[in-house]
Amino acid sequence: MRKISLGLGTTALFFFAAGAYAQSWMPPPESQRCPSKWGAGDERGSGNHMKPASVLKGAKLIRTGEVIELGHVLRQGMPLQATRQFNLHMKRTNMSPQANQRGGNEELVTSEIGQVGTQFDGFAHQTHGDSMYNCFKVSETGTRTGFTKLGIEKVGALITRGVLIDVAALKGVETLPDSYEITPDDLQQALARQKLKLEPGDAVIIHTGWGRLWGKENARYMTRSPGIGVAAGEWLVKQDPMLLGADNIPVEVAPPKDPQLSGPIHQMMLVVHGIHLLENLKLDELAAKKVYEFAFIIQPLKLQGGTGSTVAPIAVR
Amino acid sequence: MRKISLGLGTTALFFFAAGAYAQSWMPPPESQRCPSKWGAGDERGSGNHMKPASVLKGAKLIRTGEVIELGHVLRQGMPLQATRQFNLHMKRTNMSPQANQRGGNEELVTSEIGQVGTQFDGFAHQTHGDSMYNCFKVSETGTRTGFTKLGIEKVGALITRGVLIDVAALKGVETLPDSYEITPDDLQQALARQKLKLEPGDAVIIHTGWGRLWGKENARYMTRSPGIGVAAGEWLVKQDPMLLGADNIPVEVAPPKDPQLSGPIHQMMLVVHGIHLLENLKLDELAAKKVYEFAFIIQPLKLQGGTGSTVAPIAVR
Amino acid sequence: MRKISLGLGTTALFFFAAGAYAQSWMPPPESQRCPSKWGAGDERGSGNHMKPASVLKGAKLIRTGEVIELGHVLRQGMPLQATRQFNLHMKRTNMSPQANQRGGNEELVTSEIGQVGTQFDGFAHQTHGDSMYNCFKVSETGTRTGFTKLGIEKVGALITRGVLIDVAALKGVETLPDSYEITPDDLQQALARQKLKLEPGDAVIIHTGWGRLWGKENARYMTRSPGIGVAAGEWLVKQDPMLLGADNIPVEVAPPKDPQLSGPIHQMMLVVHGIHLLENLKLDELAAKKVYEFAFIIQPLKLQGGTGSTVAPIAVR
Amino acid sequence: MRKISLGLGTTALFFFAAGAYAQSWMPPPESQRCPSKWGAGDERGSGNHMKPASVLKGAKLIRTGEVIELGHVLRQGMPLQATRQFNLHMKRTNMSPQANQRGGNEELVTSEIGQVGTQFDGFAHQTHGDSMYNCFKVSETGTRTGFTKLGIEKVGALITRGVLIDVAALKGVETLPDSYEITPDDLQQALARQKLKLEPGDAVIIHTGWGRLWGKENARYMTRSPGIGVAAGEWLVKQDPMLLGADNIPVEVAPPKDPQLSGPIHQMMLVVHGIHLLENLKLDELAAKKVYEFAFIIQPLKLQGGTGSTVAPIAVR
Repeated sequence: MRKISLGLGTTALFFFAAGAYAQSWMPPPESQRCPSKWGAGDERGSGNHMKPASVLKGAKLIRTGEVIELGHVLRQGMPLQATRQFNLHMKRTNMSPQANQRGGNEELVTSEIGQVGTQFDGFAHQTHGDSMYNCFKVSETGTRTGFTKLGIEKVGALITRGVLIDVAALKGVETLPDSYEITPDDLQQALARQKLKLEPGDAVIIHTGWGRLWGKENARYMTRSPGIGVAAGEWLVKQDPMLLGADNIPVEVAPPKDPQLSGPIHQMMLVVHGIHLLENLKLDELAAKKVYEFAFIIQPLKLQGGTGSTVAPIAVR
Repeated sequence: MRKISLGLGTTALFFFAAGAYAQSWMPPPESQRCPSKWGAGDERGSGNHMKPASVLKGAKLIRTGEVIELGHVLRQGMPLQATRQFNLHMKRTNMSPQANQRGGNEELVTSEIGQVGTQFDGFAHQTHGDSMYNCFKVSETGTRTGFTKLGIEKVGALITRGVLIDVAALKGVETLPDSYEITPDDLQQALARQKLKLEPGDAVIIHTGWGRLWGKENARYMTRSPGIGVAAGEWLVKQDPMLLGADNIPVEVAPPKDPQLSGPIHQMMLVVHGIHLLENLKLDELAAKKVYEFAFIIQPLKLQGGTGSTVAPIAVR
Repeated sequence: MRKISLGLGTTALFFFAAGAYAQSWMPPPESQRCPSKWGAGDERGSGNHMKPASVLKGAKLIRTGEVIELGHVLRQGMPLQATRQFNLHMKRTNMSPQANQRGGNEELVTSEIGQVGTQFDGFAHQTHGDSMYNCFKVSETGTRTGFTKLGIEKVGALITRGVLIDVAALKGVETLPDSYEITPDDLQQALARQKLKLEPGDAVIIHTGWGRLWGKENARYMTRSPGIGVAAGEWLVKQDPMLLGADNIPVEVAPPKDPQLSGPIHQMMLVVHGIHLLENLKLDELAAKKVYEFAFIIQPLKLQGGTGSTVAPIAVR
Repeated sequence: MRKISLGLGTTALFFFAAGAYAQSWMPPPESQRCPSKWGAGDERGSGNHMKPASVLKGAKLIRTGEVIELGHVLRQGMPLQATRQFNLHMKRTNMSPQANQRGGNEELVTSEIGQVGTQFDGFAHQTHGDSMYNCFKVSETGTRTGFTKLGIEKVGALITRGVLIDVAALKGVETLPDSYEITPDDLQQALARQKLKLEPGDAVIIHTGWGRLWGKENARYMTRSPGIGVAAGEWLVKQDPMLLGADNIPVEVAPPKDPQLSGPIHQMMLVVHGIHLLENLKLDELAAKKVYEFAFIIQPLKLQGGTGSTVAPIAVR
């Protein structure tokens, strides 16, 4: 591994792209995945890990009071998928007629605010056909103004132990190659290198270096990314995290190694296992400072019936 | 005080509305307020209190790990000022053509997202004529897509000691009367009753009980509210807080007692002193549980050039 | 008929609401309605009447050059169905830096622009299950950004002979009673009174007087309306019009007389027969001036893939 | 003239760009332009030409009934200036619960709908400093939700004689060179070639061929265009038209030949003289068929307080 070069030479690409973990995965039938391990009717999934104990576990990692921001600025010029948009329109200043000449400013935003920027996925975001997490149905719960089940407003703030798994550092690169598939071995070796073990309820954050392209090479950032493959996903499910995050759009490798599949990790995590995803993280500072264990705090917006939320999470140590 | 009735009888109204604190306040000229105490060119104002020390001060108040949410759900049917709106439009499910039948859902939101719901005010929100905090000018920094100075994206997460001042409890009522002006005495007596003192850098949260009307009596909630008057505002400025919040729209009493003034507390805090405001808090649980001191955590969205942010803050104890 | 009172007394209501035309209608199966009479794959339906001949027929009715506007102003405060909205946000004036001090103003509009105000319905607006006009399927042609078939951009300007059928005048009232069902007899008697006959390709406009409530009694305007019932609809289909319009929301009586049905005229016209509807017309001036025959001109917006268009049609005589 | 090549060789460019009409123009002071020739308080400007006489003049040009559409389709992928946008979001199909399985579709549009696509400019669109047409002031009439004076809803449908001036055909080219300034001579020679004279109240439409780039070379289409210069503008003002249109964004040459000026024709027409502009016309069919004189019909949307309207105008002959 140590010979890997930073360049995108054919050798490196071949090495990374080797199909050692090519898979054939399919979402299990409803009978095998419902009710979820959190019980029939559960809408919280991995959010059930959020309890006073996880808060205390996170809080005790706060030693210096240093806060590291993990969210990108929301602005025009950030990468946006497909027809998504982010428009902020500043209104005319409204001047009150009273003696104190108080003027007011405010902005109208038109945006897929649940799915832009640094972004937290709720369970109504993804489906297997008509079926979502815990077998809630789109046809029964989807309305024009939001979902009656699994809405993001039900998540609430999450505080827990955060663990950064720096796969780029493991590989000795600033940025993993385009469409590199992170394997279970990669994750385990990176953790061993960092002398850390995952625990149930962790916020597991994976550093690929891909976030370096944000706002600079948007087209490349959008169309492909290094990330976890199906095998790594299955290993992570077993670790029972509160959420999985990364500094790329889909957390997972894109495009998927199996061309028969579309976003298998999205389906595995959000639909099958009810594990939240956290995308487009800004991890450069965390990685540069080698902060591998920290208090992780996130406050998703309470968008009623929403599929996700743009967020501004932090690491505190 | 103990004789005050819950009803809105004329006696109670007279008592509360008595003009003991009628004021004549005007924003000082620029020469007296600029540069601000945080220095020429400063854009952070009271946000400068946010440092590792404030984080540690907040974190040490986390003892049980209990989290109390302070944000309302964002939904149609919540009170909205003037022409502000909140519309969430769920899109058609997008079904991928691959074998795993992965469907995706997302929502378009059109909203004055910086100024709706439980909401944090940045300094570009308010002016004295053309002049904002630290004498930044609207005419020089305002664009159609945001402000080049004082934008909300510069605030970042805030963690500090939070103090709830329960004025409603002091008065023995669930909800302070319409347009009741909270005085410096009220604040000091409430703190004495709670056996707490304010410290510089606190997140000062005032419970009026007005939030009980949220989503139930929207018209009344919007048109007037109990809140701090000019005298209380000036007293609070001296306490040097990181922010001032309340369970009403404007933090301040509405309408102002001096009809010559429009939103004097908004101008005093945001323009003159650079102190953030936090509005429309959901404080029922905090007040009911008598949680008067806590870790306060808030993550404003990083809306580039924005005037504020809808938020989902929490208290942790 | 001439004894009918303007009041909503029980007698009048009984008379109008009498169930003489209670019906049991259902959309015919696809095998009976596809291909449409305009041919397999046709997307224009009644718009096929728009030809040089219809233009000439309309143009020869222009004798004085008088133009009567048939569209309402688009503004906040107009009646809007369900969650539809119309928001116009005027932006900050943009001042160019050059010597001539040229300032520019523009507005952002967020609205269901295909379905608000005086409004023209295309065929993608309505379905029978998954099936639309000429058996195009929602599941095959609907995308998040519009329909690939039947889009409103394919209609183009329509010019033809317009005929106003003044049912309110026939009944001797300014406004037909709430939920009055217009019958085939009503239409034929009104035409006889006006000494006019319908011809294939006409723009048939029905005056109910309901438009008098626009912007004044919005709740009443929205929840019910006098309009054509199933029998009148079937009679009108036989007249082979280019479009059917009225000064109410749905053209048809609301609610429908048969509680088993939802919007049967919408389905009959748009799905089964491919006849355009034109809603929320402003007909007060046309009716007051007794302009019963005129050149009718309408220019739907070319919203690609859209279901309809807000419009500003005119009558010219 | 006949030697001009279609290519963009340096000779052709030099010829076209020659500064024969370099100008120094400035908007006259308010004292010289207010009240306008249409009287103090007038808000209609050149729209005052719209009278029964203009309608009859237009209508008598309808001989064959042929309609030629002059509006582009509104869609993503069309050229848009600066931060303007056009987004059409098709909602989820709403299925009624009744027996007839009536489904409904509708779209939300977020767009600067007054200033996108084929587009008609009202007088609130442009200013000289704070001053608009007839000296209405932005500071006095501009609100966050529209202008209280000069709003586009006051224009109404316009019908008149339309005249196409085909400058591209005069020059023997399909498309005039980038930033070619059309001169008074060009206009007069083109009219002479077409054996037509302008009359007061005409809709004057100029064919540059630039519209051929629409949707194909958007960046080029947006950043510069052949069009009328100041001298041609002044000549056209004397012809007293109802409106001026062209198949480019600004009607005028862009960038202006005098770098001290920003959009002088916009200011000359909309602010100084109150003459409407009509932009981004689709003129290929009209020019190819050599339809130089026709009935011109346009129906601006009645956007209350709006600065303009996207439109779908037509020529009829």
